[in-house]
Amino acid sequence: METERQGNWVQQEGGKAFFINHRVRYSDTDKMDMVYHGSYIPMLEAARVDTLREIGWVYSEMEKEGVLLPVVDMSIKYFIPARYDQMLRIECHVLDRPTARLKFSFRILHNESLLVKAEVCLAFVDAETGRPRRAPEGLVASLEKHSLIHS
Amino acid sequence: METERQGNWVQQEGGKAFFINHRVRYSDTDKMDMVYHGSYIPMLEAARVDTLREIGWVYSEMEKEGVLLPVVDMSIKYFIPARYDQMLRIECHVLDRPTARLKFSFRILHNESLLVKAEVCLAFVDAETGRPRRAPEGLVASLEKHSLIHS
Amino acid sequence: METERQGNWVQQEGGKAFFINHRVRYSDTDKMDMVYHGSYIPMLEAARVDTLREIGWVYSEMEKEGVLLPVVDMSIKYFIPARYDQMLRIECHVLDRPTARLKFSFRILHNESLLVKAEVCLAFVDAETGRPRRAPEGLVASLEKHSLIHS
Amino acid sequence: METERQGNWVQQEGGKAFFINHRVRYSDTDKMDMVYHGSYIPMLEAARVDTLREIGWVYSEMEKEGVLLPVVDMSIKYFIPARYDQMLRIECHVLDRPTARLKFSFRILHNESLLVKAEVCLAFVDAETGRPRRAPEGLVASLEKHSLIHS
Repeated sequence: METERQGNWVQQEGGKAFFINHRVRYSDTDKMDMVYHGSYIPMLEAARVDTLREIGWVYSEMEKEGVLLPVVDMSIKYFIPARYDQMLRIECHVLDRPTARLKFSFRILHNESLLVKAEVCLAFVDAETGRPRRAPEGLVASLEKHSLIHS
Repeated sequence: METERQGNWVQQEGGKAFFINHRVRYSDTDKMDMVYHGSYIPMLEAARVDTLREIGWVYSEMEKEGVLLPVVDMSIKYFIPARYDQMLRIECHVLDRPTARLKFSFRILHNESLLVKAEVCLAFVDAETGRPRRAPEGLVASLEKHSLIHS
Repeated sequence: METERQGNWVQQEGGKAFFINHRVRYSDTDKMDMVYHGSYIPMLEAARVDTLREIGWVYSEMEKEGVLLPVVDMSIKYFIPARYDQMLRIECHVLDRPTARLKFSFRILHNESLLVKAEVCLAFVDAETGRPRRAPEGLVASLEKHSLIHS
Repeated sequence: METERQGNWVQQEGGKAFFINHRVRYSDTDKMDMVYHGSYIPMLEAARVDTLREIGWVYSEMEKEGVLLPVVDMSIKYFIPARYDQMLRIECHVLDRPTARLKFSFRILHNESLLVKAEVCLAFVDAETGRPRRAPEGLVASLEKHSLIHS
């Protein structure tokens, strides 16, 4: 069994996207019998980190090399509630060629239904100085090579 | 000691806002030594529910009377990270006179520093039919009476 | 890629155990640069639900058939902190032949290091009456057939 | 309004306990229409940190002085489910005179009903060496002075 790699590629209109799966747990739900609106946020985090890992950029190693990526803004639209035990698919790609920021776009689906759309923008920060910095050249090249940047 | 009422009123430019306080816990933080970006979401929930309670609208009772208020979209901007053990102040007011939707606007502060701004939009839904409905008349009147609707 | 099945079997001293993997996220960590002690709880939930699914008992279907399984007690021992981005392995088996209760035992490992041990006890409850009931006969038979009950 | 101090003292059989209040939020609940069993854990954390603060020991300052307090084990018993919007009362005292460990005992109540009992044991760790150390003398004296140690 493949335990390390989780997720796969999917073709979207503007390029390719990477997705991971998440089975909805009790801990994700609330008393309205749906996923709590805040519970999607760790799913988005896992999807973007695994997308970067897939193209060779391990965020935990970037950190060790002094590149931090704090979230600077986020927006989420909720169309259809996800339910307990559904296997969700969280698709992730990048919006715009990254300069000092990295904008991810997400779609969360169950079967073929679009449940949630989200955008999360992170800033490249130099760990030593705490100041903004540019995206590593190699990262931009990797994103382009994998058609992950949609415009 | 006053255990039931938590929070108070503050004058803002566009009207009044209600705020609650939240002391940052270990559970709110992440390894970047700041509050995880998703951890603000339950604080926003608590702030808006306590704001409605303060003006006489208890959400748990609205639910029993068949009015649900699921979140339909949300956006958050992160300016300065909140840190462990800080006492945060979550200010809450309403944007636009509610019709079928209720838009809350939030500011999260530590001392006088603005850390986070957020907007959360909820839809009035009829619990029986599952369909959108208009805001209860009395709720709109209460919001206006307390100068909570800023435009 | 296998997206539905996550996890696999492992031989332990007292019988077999089923395990799932979980990659540690930022959302799981706290400012002590380790996994927050409460963040293991959804991992335990996912492990026991997937263990039951693996042997043919889908908890969401048990619920629809009127069998609820609330947690009645839980104990956790923390030996070594899990760290960001580690791929954890959550092993799960059952303690004692279930009657009115179902006791799960868990080990959380990273590579070959034991990080956490836990026990979670759930009660079989009749959804209609809200009263305790016995374990479904078939469930006990399935657990035995798969050597999941260790004594 | 008193915004800084939250909580108060209560007399128990074995001595005094300090309590804080927590209003149950949607984020705390799950689809069984009760508080998720893991959602009590941040409440316990807040209760013990505020108990120490009340007697003059601010955990964030202890950390700066090089004393860490990771959780080493925890056990929780769930008697009655807490429900949405209930104002819970989390009572906290200490079990046994602390040496290298600090054992907290908790009771969570709604009105006069006991919902949950918990014990959480933390270890005193020297931040520099990462090794166990003894409880600060002054802390033990403060706990005794306030009758917080029950035996």
